[in-house]
Parts: sequence; C-alpha cells; structure tokens
Amino acid sequence: MSRWQPDAHGRLAQSAMELFAERGFDQVTAAEIAERAGVTERTFFRYFTDKREVLFDRTNALEQLVVVSIDSADAAAGPLDAVGSAWIAAASVLEGNRDYSRARARIIDSNPSLRERELLKMAALAAASASALRRRNVPEAAARLAGDAGVAVFRAGFESWIGDRASGDLAACIGEALAQLRGLAANA
Amino acid sequence: MSRWQPDAHGRLAQSAMELFAERGFDQVTAAEIAERAGVTERTFFRYFTDKREVLFDRTNALEQLVVVSIDSADAAAGPLDAVGSAWIAAASVLEGNRDYSRARARIIDSNPSLRERELLKMAALAAASASALRRRNVPEAAARLAGDAGVAVFRAGFESWIGDRASGDLAACIGEALAQLRGLAANA
Repeated sequence: MSRWQPDAHGRLAQSAMELFAERGFDQVTAAEIAERAGVTERTFFRYFTDKREVLFDRTNALEQLVVVSIDSADAAAGPLDAVGSAWIAAASVLEGNRDYSRARARIIDSNPSLRERELLKMAALAAASASALRRRNVPEAAARLAGDAGVAVFRAGFESWIGDRASGDLAACIGEALAQLRGLAANA
Repeated sequence: MSRWQPDAHGRLAQSAMELFAERGFDQVTAAEIAERAGVTERTFFRYFTDKREVLFDRTNALEQLVVVSIDSADAAAGPLDAVGSAWIAAASVLEGNRDYSRARARIIDSNPSLRERELLKMAALAAASASALRRRNVPEAAARLAGDAGVAVFRAGFESWIGDRASGDLAACIGEALAQLRGLAANA
C-alpha cells in the first residue's frame, strides 16, 4: 500500500458502504474498510473520526448550505419560504447520488444507534435553521417552528426521492413536500 | 422503612426530580432516590426500569392519547386538524404540572444522553401519529409530514407554555402554535 492514494476519501466511503451493506454496520471494522479501499487504517482515521462518521460526513455541508441560504434569502421572504428555499438549495449536496442515499438510508434504518445519530443531526439542522431565522428578526417561537417544519419538509422530500416513484430530483421532491405542507396547513 | 408506602411512585418521582436538580442527573443513583423517598431500592425498580425512566414515564400516556384522538377524529377532519386536535387533547397528561415540566426540561437540556432519549421519544410520537393517520387513509407522505408537523407544533406550544410569558394552559399554547404554523404556511 502506498502512502499517497488518489481519492482515498472516496474509496474509503465506497468500501465502507459496500461492507456495511454486505455484513451489517456492527460487523465491520475501520481496519476492514481501509483494507478494502487499499489504504492503511491510519489513512482511514485521517479522514474519519470513526466508522459512523463515514455515513454522516455530508451533514456539515448540508448545514452550511441551509444556513448560508437562509442568511442570504430575500429580506421580504417569510420564515417558511426562507427555510424551504434553503433546503431546496442544500439538496445539491446529495443530488445525483440517489443510489448512495438509498443504500445509506437502508443501513441507518437497520441500526438503532445510527438512527439516533441521524435524529441528533436533524435536530441540529433544525436548531441551526432557527438561529439563522432569528438573525432575520423572526421571533423565537416562529423561528423554531419554521426550523422544525423545514426539517420535516426535507425528510418528506428525501423519503419521496429515494422511493420508487420519484419523478424528479431531490430539489423537486423537497419543493413538492413544501407545497404539500402548505396544502395540509390550508386545509381547514 | 415499611414495605407498603402510599403513593410511592409519586414520592419517588418527586425525590428524583429534587436530586437531579440539586446534583445533576449523572451524580444521582437509584439507591439515593429511593432513600430520599423513604422506600427501598427494590421498590424504586418496581416502578422504574432505570433512573432515566423517571423522566419519561409520561410519554406512553402522551402517545396513547395522541393515537386514540387521531383514531376517533371526525372523518371529515384533514390530517393536520386531526393531529393538531390530538396533541391538544393529549396536553391533559401534562396540564397542571407546569413547574414539574419546567424542572424536567432544565434537567433534560443539561444532559446530552437525556436530550437523545427525548428526541427518540418525539420521533416515536411522530411515527405513531403517522401510523394513525394512515389508518384514516391519509397517503404515506402526507401522513408522515403531518405527524412530524404535529410534533413540531407540540414542541413549540410546550416551549411557550414553560416559558415566562405563557398566558394560557398547555392546550391553548399548542392551539396557538398550530395557528402559527398555519400562518407561516399561508405566508407566500
């Protein structure tokens, strides 16, 4: 194994996903992931703090994009508009990787500790959205509610996107979920 | 200590809350809770599987009431109406115990593992709501979205209720949060 490896990160992620799918998350070690990727275990830990992080390393990019998008939303945009548009913009982090997202969702659904981590990350995304809305002078309660609603809309759009009947890309699916929430809320 | 204790459950819960607030959740043992309540440790474990459960034993009642309310909602009620009314009905589990709910929220906020458990319970409540909506023939995506929105509305109402400026009871605060979500969704 050479010390330098082109796209070691990408190959580690790919190898990890294969092994998790083959054996189950709990039955895979970092050393085995490194071996399949053709790098040392030390290289694995240069990119990831632990094997769980392989599945969650896009969450930071997602959060950054959501926050930046809310911060730069039109001043006239309402809270749910700002947060909905932000999630549509953040979809670009996952767009084009539907098979990966599907495989990841299957792995997470089959492991309680991963489901917990996913919930924590989603709660952090809702809190970050609410903070960004407060910077736009949205009152506390409305900011939190819109932040939570944004995550609910993202989750619904995401589930539809990785399902079998999605007709559009992730951004379109999130847009549909946002419209659906508006419809549910308008229904007396 | 006598074997029979009137309202041992209530005194255990009360003692646990006092000790958690005084020393921090991690610094309290089940034996200490039992001692303060004047019962044996064995009695503690007759009521609670562990000390965390002291803080979460109302969640089941909350879930049952939410589900029963959705199941018995008027056939003409839309998904968000059914779920919003269900949370308003379920408020009765906590109503009248605002000081307890405030103290509980402070303890949970100060402990990451308790925050995690709270998130898991909320996710379970959203999933149970979605299942109940599906029994009313609400399509999958709308059911999940309305279930998540219901939890967001409950959380917002609850936060407002335990805050310093709540004017009404929990049911009223949840009703206001539901109206606020409708307002956010209607705002173009």
